[in-house]
Amino acid sequence: MPLSARNRIEGVVKGIEKGGVASTVKVEITKPAIITSMITREAAEDLDLKEGDEVEAVIKASEVMVSKD
Amino acid sequence: MPLSARNRIEGVVKGIEKGGVASTVKVEITKPAIITSMITREAAEDLDLKEGDEVEAVIKASEVMVSKD
Amino acid sequence: MPLSARNRIEGVVKGIEKGGVASTVKVEITKPAIITSMITREAAEDLDLKEGDEVEAVIKASEVMVSKD
Amino acid sequence: MPLSARNRIEGVVKGIEKGGVASTVKVEITKPAIITSMITREAAEDLDLKEGDEVEAVIKASEVMVSKD
Amino acid sequence: MPLSARNRIEGVVKGIEKGGVASTVKVEITKPAIITSMITREAAEDLDLKEGDEVEAVIKASEVMVSKD
Amino acid sequence: MPLSARNRIEGVVKGIEKGGVASTVKVEITKPAIITSMITREAAEDLDLKEGDEVEAVIKASEVMVSKD
Repeated sequence: MPLSARNRIEGVVKGIEKGGVASTVKVEITKPAIITSMITREAAEDLDLKEGDEVEAVIKASEVMVSKD
Repeated sequence: MPLSARNRIEGVVKGIEKGGVASTVKVEITKPAIITSMITREAAEDLDLKEGDEVEAVIKASEVMVSKD
Repeated sequence: MPLSARNRIEGVVKGIEKGGVASTVKVEITKPAIITSMITREAAEDLDLKEGDEVEAVIKASEVMVSKD
Repeated sequence: MPLSARNRIEGVVKGIEKGGVASTVKVEITKPAIITSMITREAAEDLDLKEGDEVEAVIKASEVMVSKD
Repeated sequence: MPLSARNRIEGVVKGIEKGGVASTVKVEITKPAIITSMITREAAEDLDLKEGDEVEAVIKASEVMVSKD
Repeated sequence: MPLSARNRIEGVVKGIEKGGVASTVKVEITKPAIITSMITREAAEDLDLKEGDEVEAVIKASEVMVSKD
């Protein structure tokens, strides 16, 4: 079922750690991917982002979901 | 300045689109990376996640920040 | 005190689980509600969303707050 | 493809509004549902949450995704 | 109505900008406050966080709600 | 490395609590700051936000990152 979330990055689980009610999962990316980010226009202008810039996509672990067949 | 955010994925900007106050940025990943996810323990168990599983890391665009030198 | 968050869905607590520093809460919806979503324009167009479509609102548990009188 | 996101609430699209790069979607819930929330243990204790409590699940619109077949 | 969200920081609106469907609001903090953060245990240990450390609380604008009487 | 995240609030760590895989950190703000929020245009209009309004910036703990030199 197609999902509005722009980012689906294929990978392989490399580790899982379980706490009382939370859990962390490590996924190794195995396929090239494009990441889509939505930020404020102000941020894009402050960073003077333009095509070809070397950047990092930064994501808090609690914002990453996992999907598995 | 080191940041608690677990995920910093290197890439190159492939496109930017600007709206009134928001902006979308496309970043092509250029380097292998490990993505860390924090989900509920219940979700990890429902999906029966284990090492070696083929999965997708799914991320809403509005949760992705961009960092640039 | 009115809050910008668009979604306030009335329900009853059906279960709570406590971990070391996190906690999960199950809330059974008891009243019809409209859910507002903000996604990228690109996602709305890729899914070809239009009035009358049957859809699912998908939300990561860590994005849901609880309010109680 | 099963997703770690705990909340998938069925509904019907009641309206869409498109901006430059963002979009808002209104979804009317058409089926009873249980919403799972992950909050801090401290918050659960401050609110003294327990089974049977009448509460609201509060969600920022930008945290809601949409899925459509 | 008390809310599980740990952070309620008092301030005064210094500016608003409206786009098609999104809007940005600038709030000047007018009162001392404690900010609560939930991160992975791994992040807390990697940063070797301890009482007395000088740090920054970093928050994406799209994660900040506004409440007004 | 400059980051798109609009909010970097300086403070001092006042306490840390560690669970199995998550951790909470308390940061006391030590410097005046402006907080930027991105909400829906509808929310800004419903709250009738305007310059000079006394408001609260409300943030879920799981949305706050920590940065340390």
